[in-house]
Amino acid sequence: MWILEKVFSKVRLLDDQEHCTSYEGIDPIELAEKLSEIADIGRTDQGGVSRFPYTEEEKEAKQRFKEWMEDIGLTVYEDAIGNLFGRLEGEHPELPAVLTGSHLDSVPNGGAFDGPLGCLSSLLAVKALIQTNSRLKRSVEVAVFVDEEGARFNNSLFGSRTFMGEVKKEDLKRLKDQQGISLYDAMVKNGFDPEKISSAFRDPEEIYAFLELHIEQGKRLETKGKNIGVVNGIAGPVWTSYTFYGETDHAGNTPMEYRKDTVAAAGEFITVVEKLPGSYSETAVATVGKMNIFPNGTNVIAGKTEVMVDARDIHIEAREQMLQDMKRAAQDIADRRGLEVKVREEVNIPPVLVPDSIQDAVRSAAEKSGLSTLNIPSGAGHDAMIMGKYVPSGMIFVPSHRGKSHSPEEWTSLPDCVNGVQVMKEALKQLANQ
Amino acid sequence: MWILEKVFSKVRLLDDQEHCTSYEGIDPIELAEKLSEIADIGRTDQGGVSRFPYTEEEKEAKQRFKEWMEDIGLTVYEDAIGNLFGRLEGEHPELPAVLTGSHLDSVPNGGAFDGPLGCLSSLLAVKALIQTNSRLKRSVEVAVFVDEEGARFNNSLFGSRTFMGEVKKEDLKRLKDQQGISLYDAMVKNGFDPEKISSAFRDPEEIYAFLELHIEQGKRLETKGKNIGVVNGIAGPVWTSYTFYGETDHAGNTPMEYRKDTVAAAGEFITVVEKLPGSYSETAVATVGKMNIFPNGTNVIAGKTEVMVDARDIHIEAREQMLQDMKRAAQDIADRRGLEVKVREEVNIPPVLVPDSIQDAVRSAAEKSGLSTLNIPSGAGHDAMIMGKYVPSGMIFVPSHRGKSHSPEEWTSLPDCVNGVQVMKEALKQLANQ
Repeated sequence: MWILEKVFSKVRLLDDQEHCTSYEGIDPIELAEKLSEIADIGRTDQGGVSRFPYTEEEKEAKQRFKEWMEDIGLTVYEDAIGNLFGRLEGEHPELPAVLTGSHLDSVPNGGAFDGPLGCLSSLLAVKALIQTNSRLKRSVEVAVFVDEEGARFNNSLFGSRTFMGEVKKEDLKRLKDQQGISLYDAMVKNGFDPEKISSAFRDPEEIYAFLELHIEQGKRLETKGKNIGVVNGIAGPVWTSYTFYGETDHAGNTPMEYRKDTVAAAGEFITVVEKLPGSYSETAVATVGKMNIFPNGTNVIAGKTEVMVDARDIHIEAREQMLQDMKRAAQDIADRRGLEVKVREEVNIPPVLVPDSIQDAVRSAAEKSGLSTLNIPSGAGHDAMIMGKYVPSGMIFVPSHRGKSHSPEEWTSLPDCVNGVQVMKEALKQLANQ
Repeated sequence: MWILEKVFSKVRLLDDQEHCTSYEGIDPIELAEKLSEIADIGRTDQGGVSRFPYTEEEKEAKQRFKEWMEDIGLTVYEDAIGNLFGRLEGEHPELPAVLTGSHLDSVPNGGAFDGPLGCLSSLLAVKALIQTNSRLKRSVEVAVFVDEEGARFNNSLFGSRTFMGEVKKEDLKRLKDQQGISLYDAMVKNGFDPEKISSAFRDPEEIYAFLELHIEQGKRLETKGKNIGVVNGIAGPVWTSYTFYGETDHAGNTPMEYRKDTVAAAGEFITVVEKLPGSYSETAVATVGKMNIFPNGTNVIAGKTEVMVDARDIHIEAREQMLQDMKRAAQDIADRRGLEVKVREEVNIPPVLVPDSIQDAVRSAAEKSGLSTLNIPSGAGHDAMIMGKYVPSGMIFVPSHRGKSHSPEEWTSLPDCVNGVQVMKEALKQLANQ
């Protein structure tokens, strides 16, 4: 069984109930119960959650969420691919609406907060707006995007990408899960109509702003003791593979000065990669988390070593500068050592800056609620990263305990969750009245 | 089929026949033919050689070699484990004999020279001594040690270790090949008597000196344009695993200053390992050829990284100092980064220095023959490393083309092979008359 202190449970969540700040229209117990109900769908032996797109588990979670939206009087609509929307009409329904939400699918054996807390924060914020009779000029729409994690079809952010018209019908038959079932067939089996995919496209003109609450999945808020992260941008990752080619030689019989040692080159390169980000921007990061050494034998000087670099920033110019300097450093190291280096960019997702207007709405919502804030970039991708390419989009981060995520140990305390709902409520009120 | 220019063939060997220096009693064609005959036994599809201990291939190669020893009038004796000896009695058979030889087994898909060239050099040198009616005070014994490479039972230098009494009967049942056949059973199946293993032990007092010719398996002779390597010591390897423990975090959401990144620590450590050897001795080397990163994902800051270090020197004090400083450096790096590091020594083979008397015999034999020499350490282990623990032992190195070894591309030209036989002949004559 699970070590109860380390994984999600309603009891553990409610343990902190008395520390929750009281906010108008927000019920901490309701949040704990709804979060637990979702967490129980697809729960794993290790105390985590596996809820993959177009499965019974995801269907059940969405069905539950649909009922909750209907309970508070939202007009519910599920599109041709399964994105779910609940709309609260504003005083001027003809104006572009404020969209808010996240996703209900998970990574394998993931946590209970990544996705569901965002959906529930939007739901409970809208419920609070209704219950407090808040006047809203614009309509507010709660969204649940399908298949954000890409765990089943290796195709992340599918729901939001389709919503913004980025996905073609042909893609659906090409993408397959581990059993060989295509995304197309999985959709049909779940009662959706992939032939009508284009009906799921929404005109960005109809959306005034998008706001997503998410756990930080990092340690900055907890370390600095701040309540709310005002996300200033979503740092698109660039994955670059640097392969050094030298000579495979005997570790005993090759004097140091005769070597063309690719591991030594990689070691030098790693120390450069670690030092670079600081010189470009405060938000830049670069990581070597993966290497492949050939032949990877203790007594063999490796003739080939591949170093994978993950580099991110919310500022595209700073990111490009960092990448250029990194390539130059790799080439210098190779030249100096008489090696070859091949550089190949494998992933390149453009960063998205959060407009000041959205950041201001989140910041003032937090300040108004007496909560401390920290401006932080999101290093991970989210539906807001896709939405942000087309409409002004922002994110609210709540603290992640010890930064753990994508694991059964993922945790955010109930008081932190409730603070998030409150900031979402106030920010939506502001945005919907602009 | 093989690329003929890159792998062993008799034709390729004889192509260089006209460049061979003419030495009294040595026939280059005989050397090329005998080397080819052995190479044809266990030849692989890729043009390499697979000749494992206690197999039909090894048996056939030894049988051939036995006949060649008998052909020149040596008294042949095979011991209880399969070590093969051919003795030429000297004028004083009661004196400790000079032993010379190598091995006939190979690594998987190895080269044609590693081992066989040593055995054949000893054989043809002794033949030349006989044909030139050289006076020898001491007896000279040609030895073929079984299972030097350890390719089948992961138990290298088995023949020489047994010969020097290092192996116990119990070890034979414990060691198994990939099919689960024990070394004991393999010996029985090949007609040997493992119960009589102690009869294969030889009293070191009976041996005056041991001399082994081998390909360099490095690039020093070729690079410096020298004919003969006078081996000054055999650098015993120490394999040490350094495991850094940090924290597994998201590469996007963890600012540089919050990281406990074990790959970054490993990178720094690799650059230290590469710089250290130069400060201790001219012969010291240190290599990182193998690393294991956990979880080894592009977007994950690795919480655990294991770095394997192979460190060698012929001078044990220099080697120990280097190892101490390496451990201190790893600890410093870990401390500075807030990581843990665990250090585990996995292999530690003491180096063996070649006595000046043996080096002198080899050097003067080369000089007398008009050949240039280079004093070099052997970075790899050989039967001479075991013998050197008990009796004065030395080695003669001949050039390896491009340093390639343990591969079908292993190559030493016929002129270089013939020079080796000549130096062996002259050195044996000297040693046998001391």
